[in-house]
Amino acid sequence: MSAVPRFQRARSPEHKQERREAILAAAHDLAGEHPVREISLGDIARRIGLAKSNLLRYFESREDVFLQLLLREWEDWREDTAQQLASRPATPESVAATVAHTLAGRPLFCDLVSEMASVLERNVTVSTVRAFKAETLDKVDDLGAVVSERLPNLNPADGRETIAAALIITAGLWPIANPAPHVSAMYADIPELTRAHVDFEERLRHLLTTLITGFLHNR
Amino acid sequence: MSAVPRFQRARSPEHKQERREAILAAAHDLAGEHPVREISLGDIARRIGLAKSNLLRYFESREDVFLQLLLREWEDWREDTAQQLASRPATPESVAATVAHTLAGRPLFCDLVSEMASVLERNVTVSTVRAFKAETLDKVDDLGAVVSERLPNLNPADGRETIAAALIITAGLWPIANPAPHVSAMYADIPELTRAHVDFEERLRHLLTTLITGFLHNR
Repeated sequence: MSAVPRFQRARSPEHKQERREAILAAAHDLAGEHPVREISLGDIARRIGLAKSNLLRYFESREDVFLQLLLREWEDWREDTAQQLASRPATPESVAATVAHTLAGRPLFCDLVSEMASVLERNVTVSTVRAFKAETLDKVDDLGAVVSERLPNLNPADGRETIAAALIITAGLWPIANPAPHVSAMYADIPELTRAHVDFEERLRHLLTTLITGFLHNR
Repeated sequence: MSAVPRFQRARSPEHKQERREAILAAAHDLAGEHPVREISLGDIARRIGLAKSNLLRYFESREDVFLQLLLREWEDWREDTAQQLASRPATPESVAATVAHTLAGRPLFCDLVSEMASVLERNVTVSTVRAFKAETLDKVDDLGAVVSERLPNLNPADGRETIAAALIITAGLWPIANPAPHVSAMYADIPELTRAHVDFEERLRHLLTTLITGFLHNR
């Protein structure tokens, strides 16, 4: 028999699941080193010594890999945030601070959220987006319910909207707060542009505190 | 003499400016037909019968073309919004409604804003980003001052933050509210996913009203 290739075609559901995990782990590793936007399917395949065509037996596309990674990061964030919200007295400020802090501590999640609608959801099949959307809407509902439980004056729809808004703002703010390195360096050098440098956590915390305060005072 | 090529090399500053205008007009046309993300430098060059290498005499890159287009759209939005804000009695609701409406009426501006930090500013030289940032920070200041003038209870910093937040939310919300056509069709078909379909103007208006209300009630 000749040399066994590093990755044989998966023959059982268990093997298939193992392969999927190895691919997700490789994408996760790469995303710790580069912005998600710069990582190609070929990069992921190379990292684990698979041919691109072989990788495509396990995922639809590069974007499918990252959507599945996003789902996991999202669940991790949901769980941690729910737990942290439950463990301390809640005020609009403390809820905003917790949500901003758990997001800021997850650069990969924030990066994927900012790619989600503009790239990832556009390059997969309808059935993949459908499953992804159903799961993530539920996660937003769950965390929204925790927020309105902790802030009883906030109505449930506004608790949910607080979480949805945190994610919408993250999608818009993350790339602004994380410019290319040569641009960051320029902001630091030029006094008139210092204010172009945005602190993600601080800005998000402030906007969320203000939003929750506004929800509590809207008619 | 042989046939004159459609585009000769521009020999004077006026010619150069004419070429730049023709390139911007072509990019503008194309962006009315496709999402900005899908338009390449080659597409722009083909539209006006220029070689790519020739186009690069007038702009640094595809991203430079779109940043210059964004500046113009931004100025048009600033002017129109300032005028509309000045022409009617101001309440938090009316200011939010005007800002949301003038944004929603400018799909190209919203599309470019959502590409700005994640793509456009990353693929140009430092001096181009620097000039772009200086101009756009001023435009946000100007419109922020109009907002706080119209709502005297709002402090000037919060007037500015209202406009900055409108743009941050636009960057995050626009792609969510404008999914690929096959995804939109799926949302319309599946009752549990109807709520995944987001109305950009309505959602932005609601978030901005709430933010302004919150600014007015923050300590």
